[in-house]
Amino acid sequence: MGKNLTSRSEDYSKWYNELVVKADLAENSGVRGCMVIKPYGYAIWEKMQAGLDKMFKDTGHENAYFPLFIPKSYLSKEASHVEGFAKECAVVTHYRLKNNEDGTGIIVDPDAKLEEELIVRPTSETIIWDTFRKWIQSYRDLPLLINQWANVVRWEMRTRLFLRTAEFLWQEGHTAHATEQEAIEEAEQMMHVYAEFAEEHMAVPVIKGLKTPSERFAGAIETYCIEALMQDGKALQAGTSHFLGQNFAKAFDVKFASKEGNKEYVWATSWGVSTRLMGALIMTHSDDNGLVLPPKLAPIQVVIVPIYKGLEQLDEISENVKPLVTELRAKGISVKYDDRDTQKPGFKFNEYELKGVPIRLAIGQRDLANGTYEVARRDTLEKSTVPASEVVEKIEFLLEDIQKTIYRKAFDYRKEHITKVETYDEFKDILETKGGFISAHWDGTAETEDRIKEETKATIRCIPLDAKDEEGSCILTGKPSYKRVLFAKAY
Amino acid sequence: MGKNLTSRSEDYSKWYNELVVKADLAENSGVRGCMVIKPYGYAIWEKMQAGLDKMFKDTGHENAYFPLFIPKSYLSKEASHVEGFAKECAVVTHYRLKNNEDGTGIIVDPDAKLEEELIVRPTSETIIWDTFRKWIQSYRDLPLLINQWANVVRWEMRTRLFLRTAEFLWQEGHTAHATEQEAIEEAEQMMHVYAEFAEEHMAVPVIKGLKTPSERFAGAIETYCIEALMQDGKALQAGTSHFLGQNFAKAFDVKFASKEGNKEYVWATSWGVSTRLMGALIMTHSDDNGLVLPPKLAPIQVVIVPIYKGLEQLDEISENVKPLVTELRAKGISVKYDDRDTQKPGFKFNEYELKGVPIRLAIGQRDLANGTYEVARRDTLEKSTVPASEVVEKIEFLLEDIQKTIYRKAFDYRKEHITKVETYDEFKDILETKGGFISAHWDGTAETEDRIKEETKATIRCIPLDAKDEEGSCILTGKPSYKRVLFAKAY
Repeated sequence: MGKNLTSRSEDYSKWYNELVVKADLAENSGVRGCMVIKPYGYAIWEKMQAGLDKMFKDTGHENAYFPLFIPKSYLSKEASHVEGFAKECAVVTHYRLKNNEDGTGIIVDPDAKLEEELIVRPTSETIIWDTFRKWIQSYRDLPLLINQWANVVRWEMRTRLFLRTAEFLWQEGHTAHATEQEAIEEAEQMMHVYAEFAEEHMAVPVIKGLKTPSERFAGAIETYCIEALMQDGKALQAGTSHFLGQNFAKAFDVKFASKEGNKEYVWATSWGVSTRLMGALIMTHSDDNGLVLPPKLAPIQVVIVPIYKGLEQLDEISENVKPLVTELRAKGISVKYDDRDTQKPGFKFNEYELKGVPIRLAIGQRDLANGTYEVARRDTLEKSTVPASEVVEKIEFLLEDIQKTIYRKAFDYRKEHITKVETYDEFKDILETKGGFISAHWDGTAETEDRIKEETKATIRCIPLDAKDEEGSCILTGKPSYKRVLFAKAY
Repeated sequence: MGKNLTSRSEDYSKWYNELVVKADLAENSGVRGCMVIKPYGYAIWEKMQAGLDKMFKDTGHENAYFPLFIPKSYLSKEASHVEGFAKECAVVTHYRLKNNEDGTGIIVDPDAKLEEELIVRPTSETIIWDTFRKWIQSYRDLPLLINQWANVVRWEMRTRLFLRTAEFLWQEGHTAHATEQEAIEEAEQMMHVYAEFAEEHMAVPVIKGLKTPSERFAGAIETYCIEALMQDGKALQAGTSHFLGQNFAKAFDVKFASKEGNKEYVWATSWGVSTRLMGALIMTHSDDNGLVLPPKLAPIQVVIVPIYKGLEQLDEISENVKPLVTELRAKGISVKYDDRDTQKPGFKFNEYELKGVPIRLAIGQRDLANGTYEVARRDTLEKSTVPASEVVEKIEFLLEDIQKTIYRKAFDYRKEHITKVETYDEFKDILETKGGFISAHWDGTAETEDRIKEETKATIRCIPLDAKDEEGSCILTGKPSYKRVLFAKAY
């Protein structure tokens, strides 16, 4: 298998698209904008799900499942919400097909028109808050901490595998609280959970912050986000958590009896991450040889490739390898022994490099004689010869070291790509020459934000949580500003 | 919490509906025919998923994800398939909403009509085989063993929670093989996997068999099934596995190069189980006091209820209970210590009985003094007093014993409800008075099958795999028959 991968410097976008397909992560389907997630890609997503699901449960959340369809009238109940989603939604209007009377095939049965159209959920606030009304009567029912794993549909016109697809997989948390303060704390907590997952599991460093009003979720009072930086200097929003105030409680009339016996509207949050995380994972670590996966999310952590001539040699190697496989599996390390005789070792090496398997072991006749393995790590491509007696220890060390090393590398890259600027010229210059996050003063108005976006395609990614008070003047208007925000071009 | 549950003898159907809602498993939503799966119900489904997913992976299958939408033309490619699903499908015709110009609200934008309508998947054979064409070139790519966890939609007119809903959750396996024999073996294997899951995890005994041609899946050559028997004497199809021959390979032009270099059509299977299993689980074991759950699927296996007056007594009890909770959890037993002071013990007892928690421990002042716990098992409602030093052992014993006991009970019930009959009068009599499976001779024609169905509402549930050759005559026509089949009224 030749990799034939376009290099990143040649065409980053093409490199990404090719890599996603060639590494067997996903591909386009026959349905406009909808992808097929292939088994290898799905196995990574399953590991992400498992990691996140545990973190959600550890913070007291329970999973449930709500309908795929949302009646049009529900979507319309929260004004800014419908404004945000109406323009890009799949609408079910009929419930039956039939044979065309002229024998030309199957048509939609005009007699099976729905009384009210159904929207395929773009997000589930409305259907969930319609349900919460039945679940919440008193303060004893609060907080209500629900998560859903589901597919959602947003009819995007320009789609890219994982990054922007008409249908995508995600989780959406929806919580209800007795007080504003508690809801805000929940929204903040989930932003921290997402950041921890991104950094600890995905090895992707992120910046935590607040969205500006124009970038907020449709229906939110405040949107918290985590922002990552890709190798091409573009930012990627990796997760959002919203404080929804009482907007949905009011739209769906969800009140609770407080301890004091008053009827009050409930306070809400919602938060989600999606298969978009796959895009962030790929673009943060991978190189011109293919994927680089963090050991914690790699479906195969260690691959062992035998190098042999003839079945007799293979048998001898296999006999040596099997106890090692058993020992590694007993330690919870996922290992594949690739003894296919339909492919040459060189082909296999290429394939596992392309697929980002963190550690590759090779064993041939000389290794057998010397009692050694050749151990190669995917991130740095370094190889070493390790005595068989030390190979398990070496693998355990490498799994941890690779996880740390790729995080550090991404962290350093990002650090080098946060640039403070004072003027609009400097801003435009950095944006074109270096990219990355640009830390600049902004006068706080949507007008300025819009004009900068129009003129440069850069958006305010977030107002970082750790931004310090600092007097300055807006790069565009010169008006006073008291905090720097982070701009970037973004996915 | 009074249970106020209709008894099974009074109205089985009402009992079921009430139980599903009161035990917090699921409820109807504002969307016609679509249910909300509540956290407690979803927790059971998650355990089912985990059990099945492991069995699928242990038999070499990988998960993947395919689009929610199926272009109308795809569905039409396999003639009997579209015939089977066209009558009950949700059709997406537009991709945008807009504000009505007269200001009366949100309408479907007539300018956003899709060129080709999309069907919300009722099952995914067509979109998957369209993909398999790209994945399969040579015998080296086979077998291809794929599973998908997904939501599907079938526009049923009469729906019931879990048993028949417009949207439901399921898994669908789709495999491709080089030979007919291998595909048949795969279809049979998955039927056995389903049977093992039903019996070992759900404690639901099932009969394995073949469907008659009229009951086959739309597009299948052979449908294998597992059939369970509910407490009201009605059968429930709990899982199906289909040998699809080369029907879909031909419809989607999926060929492979054999070892000999010939281009041949691929052989296929598909197989699925759904949230319908929840219905089977509920109706097999539960009683007039509520749910009875098998320990292997119970979200809470042990609940501990303190009986106290005043917080001082509660503190003393809690101090005693905490090490027990820790010890049980360390053994992988899921335990809940319910020290809410907003509810009385009697309320809690009722609630956990209703929710089918297998084991309930109670501890009051006298138990504290004596160093004992009151241990109650949900299936038989038996109580005993157990020294604290023996309580862990007792719980471990009970978890196994309850699993076995409820299986045995269901097995005995089914055994008593398989009745051999020789005449149509006998058949009708048993059907009305006793219900259950009726083992009878049938002449093998669809006409006879249809007439019996019309006259009695009983269908042929399956031709059991273990049916012995036996000469006889059809109960309806008297024509010769060589095997008994199983009839029943069914869900």
